[in-house]
Amino acid sequence: MKATWIWYPGDFEVWIGNQFNNRRTERGVFFPPFWKQDSHWPTVVFTKKFVLTAAETIAVSAEGQYSMSVDGCFTAATLPCRGGAGGSNYTIPKGEHLLSIKVWNQATPPAIFISGDTVNTDHSWMVTYEDKIWIDENGVAHGSGVYVPVGCWNFNSADTPPSQYHLQRHEQQPVNSEHIDSGTLYDFGRETFGFLKIEGEVGATFSVYYGESREEALDKQHCETLDRLTCADNRCAIAVSKAFRFVFVEADAKKDDFIVAMDYEYAPFDPKKSGSFRCNDNELNRIWEVSAYTLDLTTREFFCDGIKRDRWVWSGDAIQSYLMNYYLHFDAECVKRTIRQLRGKDPVTAHINTIMDYTFYWFKSILDYYEYTGDKAFVHEMWPKMVTLMDYVLSRTNADGMAEGQPDDWIFVDWTDFPMHKRGMLCFEQLLFLKALETMRFFANLLSVPCPVGSDFVAALREKIRKTFWSDEQHAFLHALEDGSLNTQVTKFPNMFAILYGFATDEEQRQIMEHVMCNPAIAPITTPYMRFYELETLCMMQRQEQVMKEIKAYWGGMLHEGATTFWEKYNPEESGTEHLAMYGRPYGKSLCHAWGASPLYLLGRYFLGVRPTKPGYEAYVVRPVLGGLVWMEGDVPTPRGTIHLSMNQEEITVSSDFPGGTLIVNDREYPIIANRKNTIKL
Amino acid sequence: MKATWIWYPGDFEVWIGNQFNNRRTERGVFFPPFWKQDSHWPTVVFTKKFVLTAAETIAVSAEGQYSMSVDGCFTAATLPCRGGAGGSNYTIPKGEHLLSIKVWNQATPPAIFISGDTVNTDHSWMVTYEDKIWIDENGVAHGSGVYVPVGCWNFNSADTPPSQYHLQRHEQQPVNSEHIDSGTLYDFGRETFGFLKIEGEVGATFSVYYGESREEALDKQHCETLDRLTCADNRCAIAVSKAFRFVFVEADAKKDDFIVAMDYEYAPFDPKKSGSFRCNDNELNRIWEVSAYTLDLTTREFFCDGIKRDRWVWSGDAIQSYLMNYYLHFDAECVKRTIRQLRGKDPVTAHINTIMDYTFYWFKSILDYYEYTGDKAFVHEMWPKMVTLMDYVLSRTNADGMAEGQPDDWIFVDWTDFPMHKRGMLCFEQLLFLKALETMRFFANLLSVPCPVGSDFVAALREKIRKTFWSDEQHAFLHALEDGSLNTQVTKFPNMFAILYGFATDEEQRQIMEHVMCNPAIAPITTPYMRFYELETLCMMQRQEQVMKEIKAYWGGMLHEGATTFWEKYNPEESGTEHLAMYGRPYGKSLCHAWGASPLYLLGRYFLGVRPTKPGYEAYVVRPVLGGLVWMEGDVPTPRGTIHLSMNQEEITVSSDFPGGTLIVNDREYPIIANRKNTIKL
Repeated sequence: MKATWIWYPGDFEVWIGNQFNNRRTERGVFFPPFWKQDSHWPTVVFTKKFVLTAAETIAVSAEGQYSMSVDGCFTAATLPCRGGAGGSNYTIPKGEHLLSIKVWNQATPPAIFISGDTVNTDHSWMVTYEDKIWIDENGVAHGSGVYVPVGCWNFNSADTPPSQYHLQRHEQQPVNSEHIDSGTLYDFGRETFGFLKIEGEVGATFSVYYGESREEALDKQHCETLDRLTCADNRCAIAVSKAFRFVFVEADAKKDDFIVAMDYEYAPFDPKKSGSFRCNDNELNRIWEVSAYTLDLTTREFFCDGIKRDRWVWSGDAIQSYLMNYYLHFDAECVKRTIRQLRGKDPVTAHINTIMDYTFYWFKSILDYYEYTGDKAFVHEMWPKMVTLMDYVLSRTNADGMAEGQPDDWIFVDWTDFPMHKRGMLCFEQLLFLKALETMRFFANLLSVPCPVGSDFVAALREKIRKTFWSDEQHAFLHALEDGSLNTQVTKFPNMFAILYGFATDEEQRQIMEHVMCNPAIAPITTPYMRFYELETLCMMQRQEQVMKEIKAYWGGMLHEGATTFWEKYNPEESGTEHLAMYGRPYGKSLCHAWGASPLYLLGRYFLGVRPTKPGYEAYVVRPVLGGLVWMEGDVPTPRGTIHLSMNQEEITVSSDFPGGTLIVNDREYPIIANRKNTIKL
Repeated sequence: MKATWIWYPGDFEVWIGNQFNNRRTERGVFFPPFWKQDSHWPTVVFTKKFVLTAAETIAVSAEGQYSMSVDGCFTAATLPCRGGAGGSNYTIPKGEHLLSIKVWNQATPPAIFISGDTVNTDHSWMVTYEDKIWIDENGVAHGSGVYVPVGCWNFNSADTPPSQYHLQRHEQQPVNSEHIDSGTLYDFGRETFGFLKIEGEVGATFSVYYGESREEALDKQHCETLDRLTCADNRCAIAVSKAFRFVFVEADAKKDDFIVAMDYEYAPFDPKKSGSFRCNDNELNRIWEVSAYTLDLTTREFFCDGIKRDRWVWSGDAIQSYLMNYYLHFDAECVKRTIRQLRGKDPVTAHINTIMDYTFYWFKSILDYYEYTGDKAFVHEMWPKMVTLMDYVLSRTNADGMAEGQPDDWIFVDWTDFPMHKRGMLCFEQLLFLKALETMRFFANLLSVPCPVGSDFVAALREKIRKTFWSDEQHAFLHALEDGSLNTQVTKFPNMFAILYGFATDEEQRQIMEHVMCNPAIAPITTPYMRFYELETLCMMQRQEQVMKEIKAYWGGMLHEGATTFWEKYNPEESGTEHLAMYGRPYGKSLCHAWGASPLYLLGRYFLGVRPTKPGYEAYVVRPVLGGLVWMEGDVPTPRGTIHLSMNQEEITVSSDFPGGTLIVNDREYPIIANRKNTIKL
């Protein structure tokens, strides 16, 4: 790659994020998110200095109207500058030159692609949204704009501009079809996503009803998504991709001479660089495979939540997808895209997705990203956006310096089947807030920049959380402080985060485990979303055998119900079509929801036991735990290469493409030598 | 008018402002501004509550993809909502209903037009860029977005959407043509603006060189604007309107069988509601007419500065256009559009146009607007934007609480022909800063909202300005404090603003008049821009006779040089083609510059003597001064009607369509009775 398309960092994500989120429909009705959508900067200036040993001809392509200057065109002396539409050639003279290209595009992000012998657009260019030329008392022009490194990805050819980006496709056929009443029900065998297409007579028209379940597709009145299709020529396809397993098709002309298929739409990945998991338990293998497929379906332009109904990018869902992804395809670009999209542009006018917890997860997700990738440049890019988002958070803390929901904040926590107040100061929210503050301080130190969050403030909050919420009597962190009085409800939420985020002391951990996490009197969690954290907490407390049983019971339970991808919510106490309903709608539940795929993460991090101990796997440990299995093997992708592990009750073998690893077995440490098999007998 | 197109307030201006500013070219090269360009909100929600006594069918047109809901569609119970493309009809049932329409449009501002018997889009609708739906602990959805009154104007038909807006046109012919060398020079008789068009053979190609002067059009190497034209059929026209009086056209084929004309492009106005001025002095009448034409040419989608080269919207130029406009066409919509465009969107990342003084003028311009129109709704709309702009200013004051230029601030003041430092704390800037702060406090009081600027801070600044800059020895406010030491240069700039903005005491005023304003040793001002304020100051000090001489000498001087519109800069000491040069370029000077038209304001306010004393002319005075003329008459437009005045050395007659006027003659006050002639003998 010599040249690539470049743009203002984050603007591709802001723009395609609107396209992405606005594809949601409810029974054909356009349904955009209810939070602020932003725009790319319409006018930006790209610049880089070059030293040319000979004159050089460059080819410039641009998305937008542009002009180019060599060594500045804003002073009269250097006029004329040059400019035009895409595909123009220019010759730059020998010597040291500053190239500047100003591009304007209202509809899609301004972007350029320049290729030459030595002058090529790439990540080393800088960009600004205002060059701020001003003229001093002597008539001399100065430029004082703030330039930042450009955004770019893999658009490495002049004819693949970013505005034309799309996911990949391949054709799939239904595995079964069945005439029912006035139409035909097609079954694609498992949950899928893409563009339904019909070959029929010219002018033929069809009504199409989608279902993640057979029941939904056949329920024309209540199915969540539907389409009308007309064959302009002898084939037609829907314009906006949809999620379904079943499709019920009715031809207006009641003829049968049409053929139904679909183009599966997907984000490509390299199987050779992906994670894997196999063990002696076939149900667990199936859980891993269905988890992987669930994550694949929800890994699109961004990591989204559910592919049928919601299709939006949500911060609380995404942080889990990122962690699963680090054990599946390690698609760091999709993580960055999603983090950028969620954050959008200043000014901050609401919490991310309007949800207070989701703002806090956003900070934590960058910490996780940095730990797994070591990508400091991205932290640099995000830092100003962390600062302004934290400004917003701090401007809304209450007199106690705590994060308390204001009337326009959504306090989410989880969908629960038991009553739980969401007002006042929730202990859960304070623990997330504290982690966000600590993340800010960590990054300020990493980047050697001033931190808008003082250590005193953080220490005071830490103190207040414990003093306010810990109960020696109940051996737990209590739910909330509401209008000055304590709501003494005990839920797993704050207690597991106190362990997860390293807040609880050893003694508190012990009490929490006994009195909350393993206490059957405490109301169970019924979303895979919070089960993720619940089971991670148990893993951190070395309860892998218990977790294995829970995984098999809970995710195995969904498989027994016929799941081909994992669900938004699963309550084992429900049965039949109860499993399909949510939000008061018979098919409101998402049957392919990213947060359903957490076994990928749990098995990778706590059974294969692989995790970085220095950012980007500069150092890492492998601490495998069979957790009741007879044998297991698997691969974990990293930015430095793949780690392979196999283990049975007699021995463990680890191999890795790169140095820095430590195998931990029974609290003993063994260095992992790169590029060979490291075997330890048990 | 029953229905009109509506949008998010300011978004039409932001969007068309980019189109407007980006039409600038320099010798064919695209030349956008060097400050931040913003975008409209891509997704907004329009809403209004209606009580229908019967079911009603409404027609919905939208610019963008949209969905409509009746009584909320974000809870499952009310699904399905409805939506579609433009031109759809819906029936709303009888009863009280909340209509919400969500519209997404990336390329142009989202806008809707709804017409029905009683349901029509108009200024009473509300809009938000985030509806902020959130779900409480009981599963109940809440909307908590911040809604503000919509923006709208005069797009009163479904088929005139805002994105299709354009100025009006009519054809003009050249008054003269002349073969010169290889081409033909066309003279349109006076400065004009629009689309050059050529009737010629199919495929004929032309090079076109524009000139505000004959010299410029004939100087193919140095003229500021030029075009290439090809006749696709037997006629062609340039795509982007240009300013010129002369056009030199060369046909590639060296044939003469083509015809040149132009479509004049202009903002329409109602002559019956416009200002006028006539007197016994024909030169002064010509000055008024050329001023009016200059302002007409620079009144476009926005008030711009110069129409040939720059064509951008500048705050310092615009505030003068507004004031002139209040005495010419009283186009309040263009004032509001320009104020909105200049301010753009949050976050504030630079001064307006990058110039510190221009930020301060922006605040003052809203005060002026309020005084002339009484339009409190616009003040309400602008208040949040005043607050965030003032936040930016205050975040950059120095340790003394003064506005000191930082390395990326442009301190402009004026183009001067004498040396003048622009570093440190300029007295001029502090006086403008103080007026901006006082404006904030005035509006906070008017709107009964908290003011982010404390009265103590304002009082302290007022104190510091006098203490720092007033010199009893020099009888003047001195230029600046630079690195702790006083720059004792005396210029007219801070001294005239000290009078204009009511800062100077009576005694200071007296000393300033004697030692600065009327002191020939002080360097003269050579731009009409600052002459505006200089002459206004003299008028405020009752020096109309002196001002009349200055107007005739200065603006009459431009007429003697052949001006058909007034210039960006005029130094009577220059001669010949020296008058055309500026910025180091032979034709760099704008010969049609808005700030050249200030006699409109001076004659209207200080000779006809008409000005509001309560906002929007609820009360007003007429205090006419002949200033050396034998007789004068004129009209002054107001939001309430027109005021007509005629005066000679024997009597004054005032008539007005509306009450509230007071005629002041020789310090005696006479009430002006509406709808009759009020005559006072002198």
